[in-house]
Amino acid sequence: MAEKKWVYLFNEVEAAEKAAGDWEGVRALLGGKGAGLADMTRAGVPVPPGFTVTTEACNAYLAQGGKFPPGMWEQELAALKEVEKQTGKKFGDPSNPLLVSCRSGAKFSMPGMMDTVLNIGLTDKTAEGMIQKTGDARFVYDSYRRLVEMFGSVVLGIPDEAFEEPLAEYKARKGYKTDTDMTAEDWKAITEEFKAVVKKYKGFDFPQDPYEQLRLATEAVFKSWNGKRAVDYRNAAGIAHDLGTAVNIVTMVFGNMGWNSGTGVAFTRDPSTGEKKLYGDYLLNAQGEDVVAGIRNTEKIEKLSEQLPEAYREFLQITEKLERHYREMQDVEFTIENGKLWMLQTRAGKRTAKAAVKIAVDMANEGLITKEEAVLRVSPEQVDTLLHPQFDPKAMEEAKSSGKHYAKGVNASPGAAVGQVYFDANTAEKMAKEEKQSVIMVRPFTKPDDVHGMLAAKGILTSEGGATSHAAVVARQFGVPCVVGASEIRIDLEKRQMEANGVVVKEGEWISVDGTTGNVFLGKIPTTAPKLEEQTDLLTLLQWADEICATPGIRQGWPDRGLQVWANADYPADARRARAYGAVGIGLCRTEHMFFETERLPIVQRMILAETSEERSAALNELLPYQRNDFEGLFEAMDGYPVIIRLIDPPLHEFMPDEEKLLEEVITMRVKGETEGLAEKEALLASIRAMHESNPMMGLRGVRLSIYMPEIVEMQVRAIFEAAANQTLKGIVVKPEVMIPLTGTVKELEWIQPRLERIAKAVMDEKGVIFYYKFGTMIEIPRAAVTAEEIARVAEFFSFGTNDLTQMTFGYSRDDAERNFLVKYVEEGILPQNPFQTLDREGVGRLMSMAVQEGRKARPDLEVGICGEHGGDPSSIEFCHLVGNNYVSCSPFRVPIARLAAAHSALKHRVGEAAKVVEDK
Amino acid sequence: MAEKKWVYLFNEVEAAEKAAGDWEGVRALLGGKGAGLADMTRAGVPVPPGFTVTTEACNAYLAQGGKFPPGMWEQELAALKEVEKQTGKKFGDPSNPLLVSCRSGAKFSMPGMMDTVLNIGLTDKTAEGMIQKTGDARFVYDSYRRLVEMFGSVVLGIPDEAFEEPLAEYKARKGYKTDTDMTAEDWKAITEEFKAVVKKYKGFDFPQDPYEQLRLATEAVFKSWNGKRAVDYRNAAGIAHDLGTAVNIVTMVFGNMGWNSGTGVAFTRDPSTGEKKLYGDYLLNAQGEDVVAGIRNTEKIEKLSEQLPEAYREFLQITEKLERHYREMQDVEFTIENGKLWMLQTRAGKRTAKAAVKIAVDMANEGLITKEEAVLRVSPEQVDTLLHPQFDPKAMEEAKSSGKHYAKGVNASPGAAVGQVYFDANTAEKMAKEEKQSVIMVRPFTKPDDVHGMLAAKGILTSEGGATSHAAVVARQFGVPCVVGASEIRIDLEKRQMEANGVVVKEGEWISVDGTTGNVFLGKIPTTAPKLEEQTDLLTLLQWADEICATPGIRQGWPDRGLQVWANADYPADARRARAYGAVGIGLCRTEHMFFETERLPIVQRMILAETSEERSAALNELLPYQRNDFEGLFEAMDGYPVIIRLIDPPLHEFMPDEEKLLEEVITMRVKGETEGLAEKEALLASIRAMHESNPMMGLRGVRLSIYMPEIVEMQVRAIFEAAANQTLKGIVVKPEVMIPLTGTVKELEWIQPRLERIAKAVMDEKGVIFYYKFGTMIEIPRAAVTAEEIARVAEFFSFGTNDLTQMTFGYSRDDAERNFLVKYVEEGILPQNPFQTLDREGVGRLMSMAVQEGRKARPDLEVGICGEHGGDPSSIEFCHLVGNNYVSCSPFRVPIARLAAAHSALKHRVGEAAKVVEDK
Repeated sequence: MAEKKWVYLFNEVEAAEKAAGDWEGVRALLGGKGAGLADMTRAGVPVPPGFTVTTEACNAYLAQGGKFPPGMWEQELAALKEVEKQTGKKFGDPSNPLLVSCRSGAKFSMPGMMDTVLNIGLTDKTAEGMIQKTGDARFVYDSYRRLVEMFGSVVLGIPDEAFEEPLAEYKARKGYKTDTDMTAEDWKAITEEFKAVVKKYKGFDFPQDPYEQLRLATEAVFKSWNGKRAVDYRNAAGIAHDLGTAVNIVTMVFGNMGWNSGTGVAFTRDPSTGEKKLYGDYLLNAQGEDVVAGIRNTEKIEKLSEQLPEAYREFLQITEKLERHYREMQDVEFTIENGKLWMLQTRAGKRTAKAAVKIAVDMANEGLITKEEAVLRVSPEQVDTLLHPQFDPKAMEEAKSSGKHYAKGVNASPGAAVGQVYFDANTAEKMAKEEKQSVIMVRPFTKPDDVHGMLAAKGILTSEGGATSHAAVVARQFGVPCVVGASEIRIDLEKRQMEANGVVVKEGEWISVDGTTGNVFLGKIPTTAPKLEEQTDLLTLLQWADEICATPGIRQGWPDRGLQVWANADYPADARRARAYGAVGIGLCRTEHMFFETERLPIVQRMILAETSEERSAALNELLPYQRNDFEGLFEAMDGYPVIIRLIDPPLHEFMPDEEKLLEEVITMRVKGETEGLAEKEALLASIRAMHESNPMMGLRGVRLSIYMPEIVEMQVRAIFEAAANQTLKGIVVKPEVMIPLTGTVKELEWIQPRLERIAKAVMDEKGVIFYYKFGTMIEIPRAAVTAEEIARVAEFFSFGTNDLTQMTFGYSRDDAERNFLVKYVEEGILPQNPFQTLDREGVGRLMSMAVQEGRKARPDLEVGICGEHGGDPSSIEFCHLVGNNYVSCSPFRVPIARLAAAHSALKHRVGEAAKVVEDK
Repeated sequence: MAEKKWVYLFNEVEAAEKAAGDWEGVRALLGGKGAGLADMTRAGVPVPPGFTVTTEACNAYLAQGGKFPPGMWEQELAALKEVEKQTGKKFGDPSNPLLVSCRSGAKFSMPGMMDTVLNIGLTDKTAEGMIQKTGDARFVYDSYRRLVEMFGSVVLGIPDEAFEEPLAEYKARKGYKTDTDMTAEDWKAITEEFKAVVKKYKGFDFPQDPYEQLRLATEAVFKSWNGKRAVDYRNAAGIAHDLGTAVNIVTMVFGNMGWNSGTGVAFTRDPSTGEKKLYGDYLLNAQGEDVVAGIRNTEKIEKLSEQLPEAYREFLQITEKLERHYREMQDVEFTIENGKLWMLQTRAGKRTAKAAVKIAVDMANEGLITKEEAVLRVSPEQVDTLLHPQFDPKAMEEAKSSGKHYAKGVNASPGAAVGQVYFDANTAEKMAKEEKQSVIMVRPFTKPDDVHGMLAAKGILTSEGGATSHAAVVARQFGVPCVVGASEIRIDLEKRQMEANGVVVKEGEWISVDGTTGNVFLGKIPTTAPKLEEQTDLLTLLQWADEICATPGIRQGWPDRGLQVWANADYPADARRARAYGAVGIGLCRTEHMFFETERLPIVQRMILAETSEERSAALNELLPYQRNDFEGLFEAMDGYPVIIRLIDPPLHEFMPDEEKLLEEVITMRVKGETEGLAEKEALLASIRAMHESNPMMGLRGVRLSIYMPEIVEMQVRAIFEAAANQTLKGIVVKPEVMIPLTGTVKELEWIQPRLERIAKAVMDEKGVIFYYKFGTMIEIPRAAVTAEEIARVAEFFSFGTNDLTQMTFGYSRDDAERNFLVKYVEEGILPQNPFQTLDREGVGRLMSMAVQEGRKARPDLEVGICGEHGGDPSSIEFCHLVGNNYVSCSPFRVPIARLAAAHSALKHRVGEAAKVVEDK
């Protein structure tokens, strides 16, 4: 029987494959690094020769209490002989010494394992030989002292300080500031000092036998597998303890051996634009450190074609090969030693969002990767940065260094905004609309009746509130850049100015607000504003994403396709933007937003305060045409696509004037003895007070309000169906879906839905048309999730209102929680993240999962969506995919992000073998 | 093969049992009524002879499209012959006619089935014979016309009016007012008129063949099984449509056949006291109707021993036998015909709560029933009425008829209260404490800072709010009679008076408030105030109830015993009452109630407003001795029993002065230009405003507050453990359990619990004692229920806070919901009941069930309780039993009710065969 093979040369990858069965086995046998070096070698890439001692050898060593298994050391020596042949150098030969590095390499990259030891093979004798050969004594002694230091600390376990202190003292004695001041003689002296350290700590001399160096280094790697840090890491990461680590022995190469040597780094494509051309720098007669340190000016990689044309040609071929081999843009390190090119490392290169998109699309078009892989190569966050205006990075740096940085808050809604400061919604709107100014609206915090100002503004800045405050939510919804909670800023609404760190900004002055980073600057910073329709690569990628989601069978069960992406849109303009961004439905139209408009609000208030049903009807009849008109616009924009319209949701007092302000007025008038208009104000105050609720979030709203006062929703349903009928008659394909909010028990639906369906049918009869429609409900009350089976017997669709569902499942009032304890909770790790931004899968998610499963028991093809803010968050989108949603609905601005996230979810969790490909990534 | 048996004589019950297999089968075969009559006959009770045509005959008749099955009619005739033999009378024989009644009787009592037809067998000829025999023509013609009328309407389907109108006309013609004016001749004439009605409507004569009468009546009963009302009822009640109905033919007996005849009703025990003695009335020479109508004065049943001693002796024997047979106090009807006693009906007798308890205990002591049956014979509601003071029913009636009824509201907390009216908490408390007055506190509604007045009052009356308003909840908690939402009343706090229906009641005037019925009276109504310790029968019954719950194995799984009953108690006095009422633990001590006391509140406010941690510590150090002292009292009262102490729960602003009132003061001062003290008030207002929350129920409270400001709970835990240690040193056995409220994620517990446990251990070290303790949590947030497995890894016990859990599962703010929509929801059937009174099993209950199951996955012996108000509600207690709770905790006043309800639950759902016994009931 043949002896067990413990050692594989880099060029023996086929043998390793045979022994290990498959590539997964090779990675287990040789470790990740060893497998990678062998793989490059096989691909014909010039990798410095070397070999790997297997993980099995490590395990055998440890199992036998620290003894090399029989034959291993002999195989290692034989492999070294082979490397000597391949390099033409000889280990320990002073005339042409072979130097090697020794590196650990387990199957999974793992901190806590032994670091690299470089320059193994250097001894007093070989050092002299090297000097002879290179003529560079400084280089050789620098290398030698590094070996002694690394070997001492890493292999022999001598504390780092034992080496650092004598060096520091030496430099102090000489008056040197940096290592570059050190001469050959200095490094030689240090080498001697380091050797003395070894003797002092270990009682024996630094080994002058290179084989002894090699043996000890190999053992040190093996032992480090059971070091405390490595064991702790494996416990934490759930990695098995019996994998063992491999040992890689690699020939040292040097780029500083003269002017036909050199070293450099390069990307196979432009990492900032994605353009397909080599991009990098190099230096001749230099070491890797020199390129990084920036002591000498590097050359552009193209220049190498003039300086070392042959090496350059080879480099071009190799990088192309590597990119093809790894099917990914590569970031490579190389060294040229005496004209001979060596590749030292290759890995996937970092890139900008723009480059990521272009590279992914180009590579798919080149046939290098599939469309699916292209889609997976771009993250939703990268798409996000591509869609919001950004400040020019250089200009931002300049502003910082020139003292124009004003304050920092929470980056609530990404994008860059430049404008003039205004301190209230009315002025902001007026300045934007009448004066056509760019406006930044600045408030301590915002409220629903500030929305008109916020919509008119280019950016929003608040001194209070967190990432889910009203300002933040509205800003994200409408894609307005926004910074909240900039607590350094003191706003003085009476003086119409703000102050931070002693700098006062008056109303009308210019500032720049960066919603992406949370920074606020004085004055104007130039921005770049990308447009989706111009980003053809992104459009292509998103189309591929949609195709993936539309693939039948990509998901198990029903629906068997991926998620669709719909948008939340209240106005026709929103709907048009949603379509342009690729939404294939409206998941939420909030009808009450229409009530807040200036000309309508007084009618709404009249309706609310009506004392007779005639008065109420009259007011509702006035509102009907407004609503119908809004809906007509929506249906037109969404021709052929479903439009979910939610019936009135908020409590009525939200439409009324502020109670406290009115109270102040009344008290003031009383104390002053002013009587004119007092009675009316008192009556209004009394009415508003009667509506007061101690916890309005959980009070008379949603379907409860509809049952309490059905006239409003009856009007709304009439408006919806009249609009739909009118548009049908014009040839538009309408698909209205009426959504009832805040359902907690099926009995609520049983009470209200038939009343509303009668109206729907009546309108269709009146108009003589028939069209598709549905009645459904939001699932936003925990009880609705728990009793979803019953509810689905009546409701034709579900839409998760995860904002409220999160509030009630956690028992958090969002406004209060974010102001009070949520920040601390996230800081202290009590919550992994703000559950209003990223779905809480364990709690809220479990209720969602129950609701979908139970709901589909009653109605197997139940349409399920989400219209909470989570609909635009990639992690939450993934969860919606897993739960079995049909679609997610989000702000129009987040539709592209959601489309990509939906495709990622579909691919990551696709049925069958494809799953494996993705996991490997 | 023998012919199928379709007809069973009452004395053939053994044959029926043989055919049907068991008693259940007999009831199915003969119907409930037939089985009962046969059962009495077998027991030797003189039941008028008769027989039953089986339900199978009915089904066969219907299946064959309205044909008697072969042999049935012949069997009916044969049975009739047997009855003739038993009675010595002959059907259709003018000289001694047998008359019978015909009654339907399905397995389950069922409205919509055919009514009774009496006097079948009367014809022109037999009527004459009857007159000859009885000499009472009026009686005979009255009976005859009744037969024609009943037969006509019930059997022949002629409308009732067809008979009612001619009779009314006749009486009008004669100038008669009532039927008693009718003479024999009159009834004879009416009989003729009725016969003409039959001829007119049906085209044939009223059958003069008694067998024809019998045949048609039998068919009519069969057909009525498929009548619309019967089918509808079966659909609604979920009764199978293939059961069929039986037909009972019973010999008529008459108590008006002379002075050795008579009729009466009696109870086997006194239905108002429960005393074991016959209790009833009778009349000689009279019909049942005469006893009920009260035309003649009835005699006490004892008198019968003088008038008809033999019949009386037999009656005594029979009633005793019936009670023994049915093992229950019986309500019987009897008739004596010519000295011969006949029992016409026996059924369980209705009784007062007091009688129910005495009868149950007596019967168990007599060996008639088991203790378990005794416990089941008394309902928790009956116990409730025994424990609250009640108005004397007669006095209440008199008050109503003399115009002293003042208003009616919601019966929020049972019991009767008489006192002088005061309109605010301070005055109410002062009058009660200093002037020793009986006080009724009257407010539009109450708030937490009214509690001291409410506790001092004998009764509470509000004009607003519902059954779970603050007033109602507090009143129930403390057992104070309370009527809320008496909306007729207008309270004028400035004039110190109230007005309802024009009647003004000024402060200090007397009223009587009936929390049991919701009625309010002017003046004083006498009350009766029972004491538990004097109700020895009830104490016995409750002890039996406790024994049942303590039976090992009575429940499957863990715990295998029934529920324990603990009490919610904040003060030592509450705890002592809880013990007296039989609580074996404190399930909830609300530490914050201690903060509201007059001398402590300023310290609490100082603590809240502290700007430095030194200030806060100083205030907390002042509070510590108060809390320790309270806890010492609790531990002493609960020596040997567990005491669950909940750490601070409400948001801090609840301890602060009213924001709006302060705002008014500040504005007034500003407008008037008053500056003295303004700055302090403004600062205080600003502090309170900073604490304002839009939905305080879901804000900074519970464990969130403890994490935000740990100093308070640290002080509380120190106070708890110092108190426990001090009492341990005195020889008291303490079992403190520290409860953390409002947990939503296990991370909250992981953050706070170790900090608190360190304090607990430190105190025990300081004092040098060791005692049992636990740390646990409330489950009142939906997310906690959903993630209970994780939470139970840290929490050592769960206590369901079903008030909050209901709020959040439904998304109802209780205060707002009850005022706004909850009443309508219950009225409209959207909710079956107020979920704050009776647990919503489908929604909230499902979360509870999940929580127990998941929690015990992590901690199999997890102690689970409930401390919400539902802990005192019988239906909710049953659900807690089913879910696997260890105990329920409720107001001390409801402990006896809960003990009984717990035993009922245990018996109703006990493991194994015993379950059947209970179902039969």
